[in-house]
Amino acid sequence: MKRGWGLLASAAMVASLATADLAMADEGMWLPSQTRDIARELREAGLELDPATLGDLNRAPLTSIVSLGGCSAAFLSPQGLIATNHHCVYGSIQYNSSADRNYLRDGFLAATPGDEVPAAPGSRVFVIEDLRNVTADMLRGAANLTGEARATRMEGNRKALIAKCEAQPNRRCDVRGYFGGQAYWLQQQLEIQDVRLVYAPAGGVGNFGGEIDNWMWPRHTGDFGFYRAYVAPDGSSAPFAKENVPYRPKAFLPIAKDGPKEGDFVMVAGFPGTTERGRTASETRFWYETLYPLQQRLLTDYADAIDQATAGDDAKRITYASIRQGADNYKKKIAGQLTGAETIGLIERKDADEAAFRQWVAADAARNRRYGAAIVELDTLTEAANRAQVTGAKAGVLTRAQLYNAARTAYIWAKERAKPDAERRAGYQDRDRRTIEAQMTAIERRFDPAIDRMLFERALSEYRTLSADSRNAGFERALEEIGLDAMYRDTRLTDTNARMALLDQPASAFEASTDPFVRLAVAAYPGDEGDRSASLAREGAMQKARSAYMEARIAYAASQGRTLYPDANGSLRFTYGKVTGKARDGLRWDAFTTAQGILDKQTGREPFDAPDNTIAALKTGDFGRYTAPELNTLPVNYLSTVDITNGNSGSSTLNARGEFVGLAFDMTLEGVISDWWYDPAINRSIHVDSRYMLWTMDKVDGATRLLDEMGVAR
Amino acid sequence: MKRGWGLLASAAMVASLATADLAMADEGMWLPSQTRDIARELREAGLELDPATLGDLNRAPLTSIVSLGGCSAAFLSPQGLIATNHHCVYGSIQYNSSADRNYLRDGFLAATPGDEVPAAPGSRVFVIEDLRNVTADMLRGAANLTGEARATRMEGNRKALIAKCEAQPNRRCDVRGYFGGQAYWLQQQLEIQDVRLVYAPAGGVGNFGGEIDNWMWPRHTGDFGFYRAYVAPDGSSAPFAKENVPYRPKAFLPIAKDGPKEGDFVMVAGFPGTTERGRTASETRFWYETLYPLQQRLLTDYADAIDQATAGDDAKRITYASIRQGADNYKKKIAGQLTGAETIGLIERKDADEAAFRQWVAADAARNRRYGAAIVELDTLTEAANRAQVTGAKAGVLTRAQLYNAARTAYIWAKERAKPDAERRAGYQDRDRRTIEAQMTAIERRFDPAIDRMLFERALSEYRTLSADSRNAGFERALEEIGLDAMYRDTRLTDTNARMALLDQPASAFEASTDPFVRLAVAAYPGDEGDRSASLAREGAMQKARSAYMEARIAYAASQGRTLYPDANGSLRFTYGKVTGKARDGLRWDAFTTAQGILDKQTGREPFDAPDNTIAALKTGDFGRYTAPELNTLPVNYLSTVDITNGNSGSSTLNARGEFVGLAFDMTLEGVISDWWYDPAINRSIHVDSRYMLWTMDKVDGATRLLDEMGVAR
Repeated sequence: MKRGWGLLASAAMVASLATADLAMADEGMWLPSQTRDIARELREAGLELDPATLGDLNRAPLTSIVSLGGCSAAFLSPQGLIATNHHCVYGSIQYNSSADRNYLRDGFLAATPGDEVPAAPGSRVFVIEDLRNVTADMLRGAANLTGEARATRMEGNRKALIAKCEAQPNRRCDVRGYFGGQAYWLQQQLEIQDVRLVYAPAGGVGNFGGEIDNWMWPRHTGDFGFYRAYVAPDGSSAPFAKENVPYRPKAFLPIAKDGPKEGDFVMVAGFPGTTERGRTASETRFWYETLYPLQQRLLTDYADAIDQATAGDDAKRITYASIRQGADNYKKKIAGQLTGAETIGLIERKDADEAAFRQWVAADAARNRRYGAAIVELDTLTEAANRAQVTGAKAGVLTRAQLYNAARTAYIWAKERAKPDAERRAGYQDRDRRTIEAQMTAIERRFDPAIDRMLFERALSEYRTLSADSRNAGFERALEEIGLDAMYRDTRLTDTNARMALLDQPASAFEASTDPFVRLAVAAYPGDEGDRSASLAREGAMQKARSAYMEARIAYAASQGRTLYPDANGSLRFTYGKVTGKARDGLRWDAFTTAQGILDKQTGREPFDAPDNTIAALKTGDFGRYTAPELNTLPVNYLSTVDITNGNSGSSTLNARGEFVGLAFDMTLEGVISDWWYDPAINRSIHVDSRYMLWTMDKVDGATRLLDEMGVAR
Repeated sequence: MKRGWGLLASAAMVASLATADLAMADEGMWLPSQTRDIARELREAGLELDPATLGDLNRAPLTSIVSLGGCSAAFLSPQGLIATNHHCVYGSIQYNSSADRNYLRDGFLAATPGDEVPAAPGSRVFVIEDLRNVTADMLRGAANLTGEARATRMEGNRKALIAKCEAQPNRRCDVRGYFGGQAYWLQQQLEIQDVRLVYAPAGGVGNFGGEIDNWMWPRHTGDFGFYRAYVAPDGSSAPFAKENVPYRPKAFLPIAKDGPKEGDFVMVAGFPGTTERGRTASETRFWYETLYPLQQRLLTDYADAIDQATAGDDAKRITYASIRQGADNYKKKIAGQLTGAETIGLIERKDADEAAFRQWVAADAARNRRYGAAIVELDTLTEAANRAQVTGAKAGVLTRAQLYNAARTAYIWAKERAKPDAERRAGYQDRDRRTIEAQMTAIERRFDPAIDRMLFERALSEYRTLSADSRNAGFERALEEIGLDAMYRDTRLTDTNARMALLDQPASAFEASTDPFVRLAVAAYPGDEGDRSASLAREGAMQKARSAYMEARIAYAASQGRTLYPDANGSLRFTYGKVTGKARDGLRWDAFTTAQGILDKQTGREPFDAPDNTIAALKTGDFGRYTAPELNTLPVNYLSTVDITNGNSGSSTLNARGEFVGLAFDMTLEGVISDWWYDPAINRSIHVDSRYMLWTMDKVDGATRLLDEMGVAR
C-alpha cells in the first residue's frame, strides 16, 4: 500500500481490514522498464532474483512470456511448448472435435509430436521482442496542434512507426498510449503462424464448475492447456506445413520443484487488457451513475431479445449462443463493478483522492501555472466526451444488425482502399484485411435473417430515442425509402461469398449497387464521417489535456515518494503479490482449495462432471510428490493478491526464483472493481496450482511425454 | 438427516460434506400436531421444554406467534407489543413518513403509548386460535367424483367450512391442503384491525447492506421493528379508534437473559409460504428445464421493457419501482434455484429418490394394487398439467396490462355477485371485496398509460406465440375491432373512481358499456371461463391422484421409520435446528457476525450508511451486558439450520427454553434450493441476534420504555 491510486482515500478503510501481512501486498501493473524503480519493494516482498534483470526482455522470465491475442501464455520447454488456460485453447479444442472425437468433453493428448494438430484458424503466438518509448516520434509535428489536426497527425505518426516496424518480416507491432497519452511505447512481437494443440484435459477438469463457479471462490477448475509454436526449418515464421519444426524460444520457464504455500511471493507477467484507474473523479461518477447503467440496460435488452427470438428452437439458440454469452459475461462484469463500487464507496474515494491532488496543484503557484489550465480544460472536455459516450452507446446498438454492419465496414474499406496504405484510417490498412475477412466470414455461423431483423428493429427503436441532431439523417432517409421488408427480402449479403466479394470492389460499385444494405451503408457514410471527424476533434483535444493532467499526477505521486504505473492497455506488464486467502467479519477464504472440494462438488452432471478416472484417482487420497505438505493433500486452486485483469488469462505464475508454480485464470467477482480501484483487502486473483496440473498430466492423462520435456521428475 | 425428502439420494453427498455435528441438524416444517411425533428428536437436539406442549396452540410459545399476512411475528409483552422484521413494517414506516419526518431514513420511536401511530392502511395482526383437521368435511360427497365435478364440490365444501368459521365475529379462516390434498386443515385466526407502529431503527440499521447484501453472508442487518395490537375497550377487534386499548395476548415470549452461542438449539414458528419438496421427479425436471427458464425469460422481458420505458424519467421510474423490484426479486430467486439445482444435482437426487420409492411400491402386490394406478394416473395428469403451465405462463403476461386486468376482474366480480355468496367462486365472495378494492386503488400509484400500452403490446406479441387453440378468440377479435389506439384514448378506467364504480354495477351494465377495456373484458369472458373449467377438471383429477400418491409416500416414509411433514402452504409451522456456520473446502462461514463488520462495511453511502450515533457507539467497543462472551464483542447476525422460506420473515427465534433470542429474516442465496430439497450442508437461515436489537434500543435509540415493558434488565 505504498504506491498507486489507492493510498489516500482508502487508508482508513484498509487499516481496519488489512492484516499486517496484507499491507505488504502491492498493487500495480508495471511496465518492464519500471521494475528497477520498485527494486526495493520487490526485494522486501520476497523476490530472490535480481530486480534489475526482471525487466529485461531478452532474459528469462520475460522473454518466455507470449501473447495469444486476448490471452497470455509462456514457454515451458526449449521445444516451444506453451502453457496457457483451458479457456484460451477452447476454440482449438472445439475446432478439432467432431461427433465421434469429442475432445471438449474427453480432452485431447497428442501421443507423439506428429499427433499435434493445427489450432483453430487464425491462432497466433506473439513472442515479445521489444518495447520501446516512442513518445517523441508520436508527438512529432503535433506539439502545437489540437483537436482533429492533432489526432490526425498523431494517427499518421503511429501508422508510420508501425509500418516501419512491420517492414521486418513476420512482425506484429503496435503503438499504445500510456498515462492518457503522456507517453507512447511501441511493442514489437514475432508473429508465429503455425500453432498446434498439444494437450487439454477433459472438459470436466478444464471447465469444472463452468458458469456457476465463474468469478467465484472456492474454485476447483483445472484451467490449463498446451500449445506448441512451430516455424519453418530455417527458423522463420511460416504458415502450417508438415515440415515445420518446433520453435526454439530464447528462454523457457523452469517448473518449480515445490509448489507455492500461503504467504509466498508470486509474480505474473502478461498482457492485461484495460483498466480505468486513471479516470478523474467526475469521469468515474459519470461511468457509474450513467454509462454503466445505460450499457447494462442495452445489454439486457439485447440478451432478452435474443432469448425471446430463439426460445424453443435449439438450432437458433446455438447460432446466437456466443453472442448471447458475450452479452451475459459483460453484464456480469458490469454488475460486479456496480456492486463493487457501492461496496468500497468508489465515488467517495475518487472524490477524496481527486480533491487532495487538486489541492496539491492549487497550493503552489508554479504547479498551478503549469497544470491548472489543463485540469480546467480536461473537465470541460470530459463533459462533452460524456455526452458523446451516451450518444455512442445508443447509436452503437445499430451494429447488432450484422448485414448492415458488414455492408458499412465493406464500404469504408472500399473508400479507404482508394488511398495509399499509409494514409488510410487505422483498422482499414492492408494489415487489417485478415481481421475484416474474419468478421465477414464469422457472420455465417451466428446469423439468422428473422432474428437479425428483429434485433435491427429493436435497435432502431432505441436509436430513435436520440435527438434528431444526434442521429444520421442520410441513414434514416434511406431506411424509410427502402423499408425493412425489402431490406431482408432483397439483400444478397446473407451469402458469405457476396460479403467477401465486396472487399474487392471499388467505392463506385457500392454507390451503383442495388443491394438494400449496401445502399443503406452508402447513405449513412457522410453522416458517419461527420461523427468520426467530431470524435477525432475531441480525441485530439483530450489527448493534449489529459497528458498534461497525468504529468501532474505523476509529479504528485513522486512528491509522495510513489511511482505511478499506467493503466492496462494490452501491453506487457508485470505484477507481484503473495499467496493469501482473505478474512472478513463472519467469513474466511482459505488460500488453497484441495482435492476434497472436487469430490464434494461433483454431481456427475455438467458443470460438476469431473471424469471417472479423475474422481477415482482423487479418491485414492495418495498424491505422492504432488502433495502440498502444509495441507497434506493435493492443492487445486489458490488465491493471490497479484493485480491482474482480462487479458492476463493464461499467464504463468512464478515464484520468487522465477519458476513456474501455476496459471492465473480468474479474479473473484467482488474484485472486478479493481479495474477502477485496487484494494488489497478485496481483490484476489485465482490460480491453478501447478501440482494439480502436473498430477492430472501424470496420474490421470498419462502425459508423460510432456512432463519429460518440461523436465518434471516423476 | 433422519427424516424428510432428503434421505436416500443425498446420503452419499451429505456424508462427505457434513460434519458429525451437522448430521444432527434437521429439516422439516412441522405441523404443530406433529411435534409429539418427533419428541425424541427434539429432546436429542436439545429442547428443554416438554415436546408435547410445543404443539399446543393455547400455550406459549405457539400462542404468542402471529401472522401479519406475508410476514410472521410474535408478542413480546403482555401489552400486545409485537416484534417482527424491519422489512415487514417498512410499508408502515413509509406511510407515516413525509419530507420533514423521514422515518425511513431516521427511524421511528413512539416516546409514549399515545405517540404510537396507525400502521399502513390494511395492516392486520392475525392471532392463531385453532388449526383443525377437516379432511372428512372437505371430501364429503366428493369421494366418487373426479375432474371438474370433484373440484367444484370440494370448493363448495371449503367455502361452507370457511363461512361457518367466519360467522364468528372478526375471525379470518382458511382451509388449506396438505400432502397434495391427502389432508385438509382449517386455520382460524383472530383478525386485529387496529395495528400501530411503535418503533423501527434507522434505515441504515434496519436495511444495512440493502440489495447488495440481500441473500448474502456475511450479513450485518438490524432487520427488526415493533408493532402493537390494539382492540376495543371490551377486548373485541375493532378498527382504529382513540379509545382502543392494547390487546392482551394469552402469552408472550420472554426475552432470554443470555443470547445464543454456536451449537445452541434454536426453533422458529411462523407461516412459511410455499415449498415444492413433494413434487415428483418428472415435475421437478419440467420446472427446472422448462418452466423456470420460461418464467425467467418472461420476467426479464418485463423488467427490461419497464427499464426502457422509464429510462431517464425519475417520476415514471418511481411509479413502476415496486413492480420492477418485484420482478427482480423473483428473478433473483429463480436464478438462485436454477444454480442451486445444478450445484446439488437436484434432478439426479429426485430421480434416485423417486425410483427408490416406486421400487418399494412395485415390490409388494398389495401396495401395487393400492397405489399403482394412482402413480400412473399422476404421471399422465402431470404431462397435461405441464402443458397447461406453459400456456398459463405465456397467457398470464396479459395481466400486466393493468386496465385490462382491472376490467376483467370487475366483470367476473359482477357475474359472480349475481349468485348467492356461498355459490360464488373463491376470491369473489363478499369477504374478498376489500382485497379487490385494494387492487383497483393500487393501480393509481403504479400506472402510466403510455407504459401500460407498451407493456400490453409486448405481452400481446408473446401471447401470439401460443397456438390458436390455446388463445382466446373472443379476446383477439375484440382487440382487433377496437384497436389499441382507441383502447387507450377512450377508456375512463384510468380514473380510480371509475374503476371502483364498476364493482357496484351489474353484469348487464358491462355488456352495454362502451369503455373499450370493459368491452374487451366482456369479449374475453366466455373463453376465460372455458379455460377455468378445463383447469378445474385438471385440478379435481390431480387432487385425487396426488392424494393417493402422497398416501403412498407417507407409508413409504413410515416403513423407514420416518415422519413426513407436508410442503409449506402459508399455515403455521414449527422448525428447529442449531446455530452453526458452514465450512466447505476453501471457505468458512462463521456462525456469527459482529460489530466490527459494520464498521468495516460502512461507507456512509446507502446501503452501507449506519447512522452516526450507531457508528460512534460501535466504536466505543464497550457493549456491556450485550457482549457475547465467546466472541468478546457485540454479535449482530447469526446463521442456523432452521428450515424456513418466504413467509417466515419476522419469526421470533427461540432457544431450548422457548425464550426469544432473535428474529429470522433471510436465507442465503445458495440455500433457496431448499424450496425443493433441504440439505443441511447447504441451507442456512439468517437471524438478527437479540443482543444487537436490544443494544440498539438501549444504547442508540433510547427505547427504554419498550425494554422495560419486555422486562429487559439494563
